Amino acid sequence: MTIKAFGTTASDAPLIPMDIERRDTRENDVKINITFCGVCHSDIHTAHNDWKNARYPVIPGHEIVGKVVEVGSTVSKFKVGDVVGVGCMVDSCLTCEACLDGDEQHCHKRATMTYGSPDKVSGGHTHGGYSQSITVREEFVLHIPENLDVKAVPPLLCAGITTYSPLKHFNIGKGHKVGVIGLGGLGHLGVKFAKALGADVTVLSRSPGKEADAQELGADTLITTDKDAFKAGRGRFDFLLNTVPVPHNLDMYLSLLGRNGTMVIVGAIEPFQGLHSGSLIGGRKRLVGSAIGGIAETQEMLEFASKHGIVSDIEMIDMDEINHAWERVMASDVRYRFVIDMQSLKD
Amino acid sequence: MTIKAFGTTASDAPLIPMDIERRDTRENDVKINITFCGVCHSDIHTAHNDWKNARYPVIPGHEIVGKVVEVGSTVSKFKVGDVVGVGCMVDSCLTCEACLDGDEQHCHKRATMTYGSPDKVSGGHTHGGYSQSITVREEFVLHIPENLDVKAVPPLLCAGITTYSPLKHFNIGKGHKVGVIGLGGLGHLGVKFAKALGADVTVLSRSPGKEADAQELGADTLITTDKDAFKAGRGRFDFLLNTVPVPHNLDMYLSLLGRNGTMVIVGAIEPFQGLHSGSLIGGRKRLVGSAIGGIAETQEMLEFASKHGIVSDIEMIDMDEINHAWERVMASDVRYRFVIDMQSLKD
Repeated sequence: MTIKAFGTTASDAPLIPMDIERRDTRENDVKINITFCGVCHSDIHTAHNDWKNARYPVIPGHEIVGKVVEVGSTVSKFKVGDVVGVGCMVDSCLTCEACLDGDEQHCHKRATMTYGSPDKVSGGHTHGGYSQSITVREEFVLHIPENLDVKAVPPLLCAGITTYSPLKHFNIGKGHKVGVIGLGGLGHLGVKFAKALGADVTVLSRSPGKEADAQELGADTLITTDKDAFKAGRGRFDFLLNTVPVPHNLDMYLSLLGRNGTMVIVGAIEPFQGLHSGSLIGGRKRLVGSAIGGIAETQEMLEFASKHGIVSDIEMIDMDEINHAWERVMASDVRYRFVIDMQSLKD
Repeated sequence: MTIKAFGTTASDAPLIPMDIERRDTRENDVKINITFCGVCHSDIHTAHNDWKNARYPVIPGHEIVGKVVEVGSTVSKFKVGDVVGVGCMVDSCLTCEACLDGDEQHCHKRATMTYGSPDKVSGGHTHGGYSQSITVREEFVLHIPENLDVKAVPPLLCAGITTYSPLKHFNIGKGHKVGVIGLGGLGHLGVKFAKALGADVTVLSRSPGKEADAQELGADTLITTDKDAFKAGRGRFDFLLNTVPVPHNLDMYLSLLGRNGTMVIVGAIEPFQGLHSGSLIGGRKRLVGSAIGGIAETQEMLEFASKHGIVSDIEMIDMDEINHAWERVMASDVRYRFVIDMQSLKD
């Protein structure tokens, strides 16, 4: 069927209304009417073809929440009326070692991402959540806990799982000194999850203005532009969650880790600015990459968020405000995530 | 007392015979007459001041084996006549968290290295094993197992522990696919230890000539200058022991790791040539640094070597051949480690 969407046809073109096709509901599909969709910086990178892999038209959006309006005949976990979510992936082989381990994001045959990814079943490429509805096989649909404010849930499905997964993977908890580098969409959720896991959390930011924000989140602050910040913080942290998406000096930040400390990179998207091996060798330090999380872990993250009352801090916009919102995301002027009220697209 | 040694007085000067002072034996000291001393590339880097921290005269040598000739009154673990070893460290605080964990190499007050390190007790700086004798507090002296060929033991005390420690730290054993990058002094011992631990070992080398050498060690080979090597090896390894001491492209080698794979850097001494975060993020890969090993772990390594009959492949030289030997080390022309017969200095 034909539905309304917002997308772009070229790397330098604005987002405009367009009609797209959604497939008929297959036996293992869940059809979801989208109520809210988060705005992720990846949406912009893809639309602008920053990663040189864009397929146009790009219909972005991979922080999707909505209501089930139809289910296929073999669907067992969802029923019409359920409030559900879809994150960054909509399909994978489900049979390789990675998928069997619950790491669908590392599927050996490549997971099908929610937008801009070749659709191995239908052909063409996938379209995301800046649209009225989406149809997804049930294995990639998530239950949204009832007690969470549904408007503030979408960012959990990308920014949330991206920060939760490495914290869990490295067993962060009580007694750990965690530093979160960068206080944006990812960082503020990283702080919330690390706090809820029992860690002692510090926000590392270049902006003195973030001090009050960090305090509101219950975190200490290390302002890294202070002259003595790196000296003062030397060896202080067990774990650094690095959400900074632009090239930066890793050596400086690695000096803040203690012996056997770990820095997880979740935000960086470009080559590092050099890296001295001594920064890792002195103290047996680890630099690790992490990409979102698997589906079971994403559901676990939502249950954890439910238990601890964690949602994203958001700013709600209408669909036709999206181009301006993207400009503000690029200027880091959002606290901390835009969510689109998809009702505004229907009207 | 005054003893004979070989050392250098400037970064561009050759090694020459010189007289140095050794302290009188303290109550907790072991005095060792040196019988064999290994030649490590670090000896050359220090003498040439490549690391900008040289203190002259430099008397190199931190792969030391000898016989106990005197012990202090409180020494309990050693007696005159014992065959013992001294590796890269001769002192540390022994009270900080790192020392208490057996990580003396990461002592919070900095370990005293065997040569070129400020001597916190005696003043001045330490002198290494290119000398007739050395006097060391007993905590930093190692028992050499009787069944090992003592001439081939010295390299175990630096190259050996440097490769053994990360293999043990990451629980490498049966079923693991291990790649050893570079087949030199470190690499060939890394292969022997990884094999003895039960791993499936492959040597990664740029030189097709190393194929036969790897085979002798019971390892497969991946010649990384082959056109299709990186494509053929993609995702093949669980663990890469990177012993390459010069800048090289990490991204290429990281592509050889499977999901959750680990690359340990033990040899690199200069900044990396770029590193794309995607190389770590895709597959949750880890880049870790490792420096030698603690004293207890070094003793454990010697017992493991004893059990599995592991020593270094060596080429024996006399002390006055050292300058030529260093030229050959710099040209990677040694299979795989020079050991100095220290009797040649006494004569």
